[in-house]
Amino acid sequence: MAQKKYLFTPGPTPVPPQVLAAMAEPVVHHRSPDFKPIYERCLTRLREVYRTQRDVLLYTASGTGAFESAVANLVSPGEPHLVVSAGNFGERWAAMTAAYGADVDHLRYAWGETPDADDVRARLRERPAKAVWVVHSETSTGVVADVQALAAAAKEAGALVAVDAVSSLGAVPCETDAWGLDVVVSGSQKALMTPPGLGLCAVSAAASAATGSSPRFYFDWERTQKAQAKLDAAFTPPVSLVAGLDVALGLLLEEGLEAAFDRHVRLGRAARAGAKAMGLELFSPDEDRSAVVTAVRPPEGIDSSEVVKGLRDRFGITIAGGQGELQGKIFRLGHIGWFDVFDITTMLAAVESVLAELGAEIERGVAVTAALEAYEHQRVA
Amino acid sequence: MAQKKYLFTPGPTPVPPQVLAAMAEPVVHHRSPDFKPIYERCLTRLREVYRTQRDVLLYTASGTGAFESAVANLVSPGEPHLVVSAGNFGERWAAMTAAYGADVDHLRYAWGETPDADDVRARLRERPAKAVWVVHSETSTGVVADVQALAAAAKEAGALVAVDAVSSLGAVPCETDAWGLDVVVSGSQKALMTPPGLGLCAVSAAASAATGSSPRFYFDWERTQKAQAKLDAAFTPPVSLVAGLDVALGLLLEEGLEAAFDRHVRLGRAARAGAKAMGLELFSPDEDRSAVVTAVRPPEGIDSSEVVKGLRDRFGITIAGGQGELQGKIFRLGHIGWFDVFDITTMLAAVESVLAELGAEIERGVAVTAALEAYEHQRVA
Repeated sequence: MAQKKYLFTPGPTPVPPQVLAAMAEPVVHHRSPDFKPIYERCLTRLREVYRTQRDVLLYTASGTGAFESAVANLVSPGEPHLVVSAGNFGERWAAMTAAYGADVDHLRYAWGETPDADDVRARLRERPAKAVWVVHSETSTGVVADVQALAAAAKEAGALVAVDAVSSLGAVPCETDAWGLDVVVSGSQKALMTPPGLGLCAVSAAASAATGSSPRFYFDWERTQKAQAKLDAAFTPPVSLVAGLDVALGLLLEEGLEAAFDRHVRLGRAARAGAKAMGLELFSPDEDRSAVVTAVRPPEGIDSSEVVKGLRDRFGITIAGGQGELQGKIFRLGHIGWFDVFDITTMLAAVESVLAELGAEIERGVAVTAALEAYEHQRVA
Repeated sequence: MAQKKYLFTPGPTPVPPQVLAAMAEPVVHHRSPDFKPIYERCLTRLREVYRTQRDVLLYTASGTGAFESAVANLVSPGEPHLVVSAGNFGERWAAMTAAYGADVDHLRYAWGETPDADDVRARLRERPAKAVWVVHSETSTGVVADVQALAAAAKEAGALVAVDAVSSLGAVPCETDAWGLDVVVSGSQKALMTPPGLGLCAVSAAASAATGSSPRFYFDWERTQKAQAKLDAAFTPPVSLVAGLDVALGLLLEEGLEAAFDRHVRLGRAARAGAKAMGLELFSPDEDRSAVVTAVRPPEGIDSSEVVKGLRDRFGITIAGGQGELQGKIFRLGHIGWFDVFDITTMLAAVESVLAELGAEIERGVAVTAALEAYEHQRVA
């Protein structure tokens, strides 16, 4: 038998067969009646998932591309901006805003720390900023920040707030309108259960009114806003990916957003309970909010790359190692999107086998049960 | 029976079933051994199709996005650039270079005219430019320009040359290295027989050395060049589309590029012969080079939108109308990529039926035979 394969990385994530089937449908023209109903439904569903009344702009781009739309539209050279980082993606946004000539105040936490709203408040008191740039789920560390609190701190100081919700949207609560988030960027390839290729960006009226002087065309918000308002696209959209996303959003909304959030909380609990039961140390916080990626330190003396390689070679399972300064130091178990508890027990059982083979002293035979028990807790209040 | 549907637009174009099947494969991680061989083969095949020794940069973007990579990397504010336009896309590039602050000299032809190398020569004598921006196949009019001659004129004047080859690459000859083309932009959704979503950009050493000061991150050439050199991607690539493109390029190279060019010439002859046999007037040139889109004027008194609508409503066939100032005045029959002569006879037979129904005085029963005969001519020399 050909080896079964498992994709347990925090993005791209596994895609449901119904979505893959939609990807294989014959290509249709984006201005034809074959596409318009799909497009309209997809845009409507996106508003529901984003919990916003505003249009969600759809870009043929990775999440980084959609994020660049925010930078290109909001940043003018020399303007003060506050970037909050605590991992790989936050640092990317600091580099990107700097590339656009922003006068960047970089509130930089060590990788794995959780940004604090009071720190943002203090920084903005010292130096006001046009916008505060924050990461909701820092995929490189597993930390999910309290974006509601961070946004409130920004608002108090009269700053706009732009949020990287690439790996959080659809997995943990992200209330675009209710929390007053001015820009929320996401992508198709995480909790939205679609292959990579679509970048998303919700833009508040205040953000739309605050666009700056940086050159832009492809990522110009207004151009895409105007086109989408007519159910058109400024440039040929990736029709197959849109059709896939439409199906995936249908699945997500059929489950219900609250149920999906609850499932992710319980998946996170299960992953953490299993890792701890084996005697492993967590790198990501042991808290319900950080429900999308569980980052784990390997036992003393074992390089996390060996764990990643072992899972792949022995079992056809792909997980992620550490990025940047965390290379070799953590492995990351993704559980964003199309995951149930048996994906968690599979990854834990495989990690246990591989660690044992690598000679690690771990507790055997308890992780799977611990995970199942943690998952079965009653619904999160 | 559900109506069969036909996509005869000049992009997106029909996608072979083998490519659609690849799109439906389970998603793999872009840094895993599941993806790397696909990625490497795809990049190798792209170099072959581009006829270049240099890497072809792969962007998650539409063709316009890949074109913007050229503008963002090459244009600095205030620099002189010469944009040659004779249709919708040329005008888009004029607007885009202007948005990046270029001091644009716009050599603007009426839509449907064919740009002339001597005009470029004369303009560059009057006012040197850093780069000349030209469209190879102007999808809005059906004109394929003599890019080799235009590029030679640019080179004589010491200017770089950037080419929009979105609807031409793989359909008509485009010799990136041999013709000294510095930038060649294309996309997945035309002759490369893949759904939209991948933008491509070949960059010469001279262009790489001439990058300017415009802000950029996502579209920064160097960032993507460095990543691809390590068989990595700067940002999560659309793995499903890359897998599809790999299969499509395999089909194209199996046919052979010269054979594909020959087929397109004969498809163009067939479409023109059929339209003329009905008594219709061609809008696009009646010449072998313009082999990707055949633009046709409807008979006096008939709006081309009625033809487009008739084909769709009666037969489930999607063709394109005129864009911009040509709206209502032409309809466009695309034959780029996954087309054979029976696609041409189908579109002609349907146009004939619809025009007859609209009361047009046309010659009946001759178009299909004329097309078949024109196609069967011996191989183009």
